[in-house]
Amino acid sequence: MSIVTVVGNPRAGSRTHGAAVAATDAIAARLGHEGERDVVDLSALATHLLDPGAHAGLEVALDLVRGASVIVVASPTYKATYTGLLKAFLDRLPPRGLAGRTALPVLVMGDPRHALAVEAHFRPLLVELGAVVPTPGLALLESDLPGDEVLAAWADLVAPQIRLKESALS
Amino acid sequence: MSIVTVVGNPRAGSRTHGAAVAATDAIAARLGHEGERDVVDLSALATHLLDPGAHAGLEVALDLVRGASVIVVASPTYKATYTGLLKAFLDRLPPRGLAGRTALPVLVMGDPRHALAVEAHFRPLLVELGAVVPTPGLALLESDLPGDEVLAAWADLVAPQIRLKESALS
Amino acid sequence: MSIVTVVGNPRAGSRTHGAAVAATDAIAARLGHEGERDVVDLSALATHLLDPGAHAGLEVALDLVRGASVIVVASPTYKATYTGLLKAFLDRLPPRGLAGRTALPVLVMGDPRHALAVEAHFRPLLVELGAVVPTPGLALLESDLPGDEVLAAWADLVAPQIRLKESALS
Amino acid sequence: MSIVTVVGNPRAGSRTHGAAVAATDAIAARLGHEGERDVVDLSALATHLLDPGAHAGLEVALDLVRGASVIVVASPTYKATYTGLLKAFLDRLPPRGLAGRTALPVLVMGDPRHALAVEAHFRPLLVELGAVVPTPGLALLESDLPGDEVLAAWADLVAPQIRLKESALS
Repeated sequence: MSIVTVVGNPRAGSRTHGAAVAATDAIAARLGHEGERDVVDLSALATHLLDPGAHAGLEVALDLVRGASVIVVASPTYKATYTGLLKAFLDRLPPRGLAGRTALPVLVMGDPRHALAVEAHFRPLLVELGAVVPTPGLALLESDLPGDEVLAAWADLVAPQIRLKESALS
Repeated sequence: MSIVTVVGNPRAGSRTHGAAVAATDAIAARLGHEGERDVVDLSALATHLLDPGAHAGLEVALDLVRGASVIVVASPTYKATYTGLLKAFLDRLPPRGLAGRTALPVLVMGDPRHALAVEAHFRPLLVELGAVVPTPGLALLESDLPGDEVLAAWADLVAPQIRLKESALS
Repeated sequence: MSIVTVVGNPRAGSRTHGAAVAATDAIAARLGHEGERDVVDLSALATHLLDPGAHAGLEVALDLVRGASVIVVASPTYKATYTGLLKAFLDRLPPRGLAGRTALPVLVMGDPRHALAVEAHFRPLLVELGAVVPTPGLALLESDLPGDEVLAAWADLVAPQIRLKESALS
Repeated sequence: MSIVTVVGNPRAGSRTHGAAVAATDAIAARLGHEGERDVVDLSALATHLLDPGAHAGLEVALDLVRGASVIVVASPTYKATYTGLLKAFLDRLPPRGLAGRTALPVLVMGDPRHALAVEAHFRPLLVELGAVVPTPGLALLESDLPGDEVLAAWADLVAPQIRLKESALS
């Protein structure tokens, strides 16, 4: 099993990508996880997400997410909430498609006025998918990046809420 | 100028499409609008929405929406909120890209437990885009469709809140 | 008829009170309203709001609100949303107790990270009560007070959405 | 330490009270907790909650909540969200006053259309207070009460997320 990072920014190499990986690092370190770490960068899948046809890369990405114990789900704020890119990907999951998984919402925002989007919009989406979603979510201000202290404080709160079956991260 | 209907269902000919057109009819009748009526069915644009390149049909759709006085924006509930398809389309608009327009959210839901998504998630998205968004939004239960009475009651509440410049709907 | 200002701050003479009156002034000026202007400061009614018994002052306040054409409803952010004081007052209204009235949410916040509470939490409450709620709501940062420019920009957007029957504000 | 149940219904002996105790029973059973179980019924404290003066019973209630490991927080839906009574009580807590505690939101609703209020409004309030809030929250339909099956399914999901220090429930 593995920890998977999902990056919902339409641009490759985005700050969201960097922040998402750093958030995943902070969680993995606290869980003592040294195993596999996959990153699903949705910018590479964008043109296939809304195409009803099958696409091998997209199927792999969905399988990775569904097979993970812990999923760090990151998005920049577009229109004061998560991106359509991310939502289009999560819409491909079946009902309660994240049941039994732990999902951690991470929002990278340009404007602090969008901070509550994590709790008001983003978390309810992951809860609807059946995921266990530790509290609080992470709202990172772009101008605070890399934001090591904010990340560390968040990971200290969240990691102890992640309950893994004994061999889950072996 | 015109009233435009946006349909955020990935399937063509969806019940969302039918409900959206019926909602638009109900509004247009109360406004005495007999002019042009465009429908932007996003199912036809899906593969282009998340493609960063230019696409003529998508540009036409964005121009239609931005040029309209009144926009009926409809979505089915996916994961207890609007679809990624719809969000991906709205993400293509610039900041405050609906300023000066009136936008009416319409959600077609399979489960009545998702009704509050209209006010908690969907309306804030349209407000962030700068639109005037009359109250309340419309949450239609699939099993109630065509829902003529619900539609009429909603249109009676909402239409008087739409303030058009004199020649806006000529 | 009249414009009524409701102040949901437990402390008398609060900054919320000042901001609420200034917001009301800005709206009244744009409506050309020179008539009666009542203020319901809930700090004076606090001990009666959760008392199931009747209380003359509270009944007067509820009647003022229900008889008004336009209600400016103001609260500071407590726990990242409107106060329990304000909610306890609004809970005394019957179902759809603000139908036919226009209500304008005003939130005075210490932290910009609470801004979305206006659209995600406060507006849905007023919509549930049946009010017409023009967009956007007003989220004022304490450190920006008196915030004349923010108030003026908001009132310019909101006032044209208020539709009064001919003699409503006479 | 103890598990505490908070009941935010203005009427004594409410269905909310019954549902809250049943939810607490279901959680306690799964945690193997046989110790102290306090219930804070806010209907008994209502007239003091918005009184700025000190009140012995209220202080005891606040201490119980802050000293608990697990808090089941229950409310009926008033105006499509939690009651002003409950919010007034939680407003008495200091910032992050539930840090280190686990809080479980329980909403008893008359109308299924209010179900999302648990995730969109109620959970964000408890998260703002610093609580660990396992997912999902519980939205119980009045007409389904006592709702033993719904309660059991919910408790099966939520109880494993509650992480107690070794002696926490002794």
